[in-house]
Amino acid sequence: MRTQVGIVGAGPAGLLLSHLLHRHGIDSVLLETRGREQIESTIRAGVLEQRTTDLLTEAGVGDRMKAEGFVHHGFELAFEGKRRRIDLTELTGNSITVYAQHEVLKDLVAARVEANGALYFNVSHTSIDGIDTDAPSIRFTHDDAEHVLHCDFVIGCDGSQGVSRACIPAARRNDYERVFPFGWFGILVEAPPTSEELIYARHERGFALISTRSPTVQRMYFQCDPKDSAENWSDDRIWSELHARVDSADGRHITEGRIFQKNIVGMRSFVSATMQHGRLYLAGDAAHIVPPTGAKGLNLAVSDVRILSNALQAFYAESRSDLLDAYSETALKRIWRAEHFSYWMTRMMHRLDDASAFEQRLQVAELDYVTTSRAAAIAMAENYVGIATV
Amino acid sequence: MRTQVGIVGAGPAGLLLSHLLHRHGIDSVLLETRGREQIESTIRAGVLEQRTTDLLTEAGVGDRMKAEGFVHHGFELAFEGKRRRIDLTELTGNSITVYAQHEVLKDLVAARVEANGALYFNVSHTSIDGIDTDAPSIRFTHDDAEHVLHCDFVIGCDGSQGVSRACIPAARRNDYERVFPFGWFGILVEAPPTSEELIYARHERGFALISTRSPTVQRMYFQCDPKDSAENWSDDRIWSELHARVDSADGRHITEGRIFQKNIVGMRSFVSATMQHGRLYLAGDAAHIVPPTGAKGLNLAVSDVRILSNALQAFYAESRSDLLDAYSETALKRIWRAEHFSYWMTRMMHRLDDASAFEQRLQVAELDYVTTSRAAAIAMAENYVGIATV
Repeated sequence: MRTQVGIVGAGPAGLLLSHLLHRHGIDSVLLETRGREQIESTIRAGVLEQRTTDLLTEAGVGDRMKAEGFVHHGFELAFEGKRRRIDLTELTGNSITVYAQHEVLKDLVAARVEANGALYFNVSHTSIDGIDTDAPSIRFTHDDAEHVLHCDFVIGCDGSQGVSRACIPAARRNDYERVFPFGWFGILVEAPPTSEELIYARHERGFALISTRSPTVQRMYFQCDPKDSAENWSDDRIWSELHARVDSADGRHITEGRIFQKNIVGMRSFVSATMQHGRLYLAGDAAHIVPPTGAKGLNLAVSDVRILSNALQAFYAESRSDLLDAYSETALKRIWRAEHFSYWMTRMMHRLDDASAFEQRLQVAELDYVTTSRAAAIAMAENYVGIATV
Repeated sequence: MRTQVGIVGAGPAGLLLSHLLHRHGIDSVLLETRGREQIESTIRAGVLEQRTTDLLTEAGVGDRMKAEGFVHHGFELAFEGKRRRIDLTELTGNSITVYAQHEVLKDLVAARVEANGALYFNVSHTSIDGIDTDAPSIRFTHDDAEHVLHCDFVIGCDGSQGVSRACIPAARRNDYERVFPFGWFGILVEAPPTSEELIYARHERGFALISTRSPTVQRMYFQCDPKDSAENWSDDRIWSELHARVDSADGRHITEGRIFQKNIVGMRSFVSATMQHGRLYLAGDAAHIVPPTGAKGLNLAVSDVRILSNALQAFYAESRSDLLDAYSETALKRIWRAEHFSYWMTRMMHRLDDASAFEQRLQVAELDYVTTSRAAAIAMAENYVGIATV
């Protein structure tokens, strides 16, 4: 089996890259360990930057997003019983779109299938060879048969637990990591939206986020012990916690409904520098993880893929390898910006049990500041809607 | 002995308050444990916000500052071998004045002496009584004689180690504190300035600050172990350390000279909330401490005194006590803003041995951001020149 670009992992990075390469006339094969149904039903965050929606639209996969997504022009910060709005559009001229990641994946899978793209689900025993040569290959098992995919480049889009990153020699890699001592308890609720816009709440009891999925389904999160179990939380206990953290002194309160999903996720920051070695390039979660507070995960994957697809196009169309050589350095500028923003939002909004009372009180001082200084509000807003570094 | 306002401590807060009250026709007595020479020769930071210099000028004690101080329109951030300028005036319309704190004190002492103000140096055994009544008093010893000063109000300007703060019942006070695990090694040098503006350097070896005192005397600092001793540092070792931290890749380097003073200071953040109880009010370091990174200490003392002198004037001229009642709340807005800024600058610029490699790397990401985003640069600059919260 042979292709130009072998892609490991059919998450947003892998699928979008495969689709963009196809539009440039570059052949790729996409290998995914999970099944199509699993990918299309794993619910993840869905705040898309303007640049992300622009790219999806230009790439011809934005129709359903445009019809079903929700454009938000701001969000609210709740603290000390107050709610203060960050007006993204007024502050930056941009907006964000709320459209769930698995919906983006459905659109991308449909586009790949429609184009007869080579897309293998349920593969196993994936291994990568020869990245130090000009003829790398990917060995994998599919339908009980072993295959070898020969290619010019291998792109690792297989997430933080995938096989790709480990193929870069440890001596070449600096791994930067921060594991947070808290997690997010997430619920899906049958209810109308609490508010037209997202609410990020800082409370002594912990962080909470009121998000939305559709006019009838809402997504809510609250800070919890990452080692806690969802079974320990009755619906009543969940509502009591959310009301305590988010309801405002002026009487606005969250809207309850039937809870039909509960889960707990841990939170960490991670960056692999470098993101490339020989003929192997990493994109998305394979190279970096952000805590969800800044809503940057999917947008960073798209940003990596934008850079990488342009670099591959320059290689095939113009025999240029300078963009490929610079890929990691170029991508990391945007990544470190987003890592810092995500870390900053996380530290400002969460209960920090490891911090002094002084540092806890500084959170309020900082929230007061970002909601009263125009410069500070623009800084927050420009990061939230996404800063172009390339 | 009787006066209207008894002031404990003749640092910048006490002296300026006494002077401003005098200009409003309000009588005060100022008590200080140290001698005049000691006060006038203890060298402290000297970055004055525009609002500070404006107030000193309006109060008639700005002539020498205007003649001998240096107006700076920006400062430089050094990191990763680069130097990037924060143009305060372009970003905020304001500037700062470099004029040492002990020079401000000399001007204020001279003004009090010229006005025949009651100013007692070298007092001892100071104690405060009756702050829960309308007739508080201060007991003290001066020239071997014990005195009791009866007054309407007691103002505690006696610094973090003074007797005033402890007079507020512990149950009424929330003390917020953060002690940093590093200090500043400070030197005074006979040399021309290294640069026209201050240089704040972030380096893997630790923070450094190149400041100036006059065309022939420079002030330099570098991060050190607060438990280290100045005797452990030869001149050669000091210069080697400063060159390593501050010299830029393009060949600009610090200018050496004869080192004629060395000292090490610890660093901490502290806020006493409340700042008032009954007839006792705290101002300046008695109520709050900032690490010197943000250059806010003296400016906060002046800000407290501005609020307090207006409140006392409203009490005596219009029998209004509402401004006095609101003093702590009003002052704390500005204080928390400065505490946050000082903490932020400190965390961004210092080597953090207690932080992960990830967090160390975020410092560079944040410095890249504040020196490339106009909004972030304004946010930094507006805090540096001083934000008006009242």
